[in-house]
Amino acid sequence: MSNALNVTIPEGAPFIEFTREFDFPVAAVFEAHRNPEIVAQWLGPDDMKIEVDHYDFRTGGSYKYTHTDHTGSYGFSGVFHKVRENEFALQTFEFDGFPDVVAMDYMHFETLADNRCRLVGHSVYPSQEARDGMVASGMEVGLSQGYQRLDALLANR
Amino acid sequence: MSNALNVTIPEGAPFIEFTREFDFPVAAVFEAHRNPEIVAQWLGPDDMKIEVDHYDFRTGGSYKYTHTDHTGSYGFSGVFHKVRENEFALQTFEFDGFPDVVAMDYMHFETLADNRCRLVGHSVYPSQEARDGMVASGMEVGLSQGYQRLDALLANR
Repeated sequence: MSNALNVTIPEGAPFIEFTREFDFPVAAVFEAHRNPEIVAQWLGPDDMKIEVDHYDFRTGGSYKYTHTDHTGSYGFSGVFHKVRENEFALQTFEFDGFPDVVAMDYMHFETLADNRCRLVGHSVYPSQEARDGMVASGMEVGLSQGYQRLDALLANR
Repeated sequence: MSNALNVTIPEGAPFIEFTREFDFPVAAVFEAHRNPEIVAQWLGPDDMKIEVDHYDFRTGGSYKYTHTDHTGSYGFSGVFHKVRENEFALQTFEFDGFPDVVAMDYMHFETLADNRCRLVGHSVYPSQEARDGMVASGMEVGLSQGYQRLDALLANR
């Protein structure tokens, strides 16, 4: 069973917030964000094939991957400003379709009782228009589908 | 003679904008941002001593430096998401007094006529409070004094 993704789009501020709980320990969910081979199995919408060029999930590391479907290829890249094991990650995020328009994605990993955990995301955009464009792109569906695949992966490990 | 620093603090958006012209070619001003030995001679307010731990001004690079005065030491660090020679730089910016509160600093280097250039800055904060705190910290004075020292440096080269 999957938990719900809760996305908040604040009015008049260039942010996107979300929370998502998992019925798995924080260490398992963190590792699924750190290990590129696991990341490649869940990140993104269901109908996209992912190719990970590199994914170095540590302070000062960088990443680059491409999503492909029948409509074309979409590249994403950025740097990890800070990663603290089982606690926190902050990365930049750029879609190559909008060069030089870069978001900052904060992610807090919170330990809950009963070996569960919660992800709390806060994304910051360089303009209100960039934020609204990201919302319109269907990011919520992609995020939701990705976390459902992550649930399935963790259940099978 | 120094050109004025123009800072804009938009209401209701977590941004700080600035423009600053220089009576020097864009290549000279860009190089003064890229070369750590030159950066150490102008970055920050007049009354601060700077110590640069590292400053790797390129896509995927990182930086760390400390400002010290009679009140104490203040550390700053981040990563360079993207650097394009003589054109563009985008870096994250964190003050160790406010850990995990990180800004994104966009900087466009624009070529003007008569061997002059213009820096256009756009800083993005993760909350309105963080932006207001940065404004209250006196960042405008520090930026203004730094660019005046940069003018003097470039005039003497």
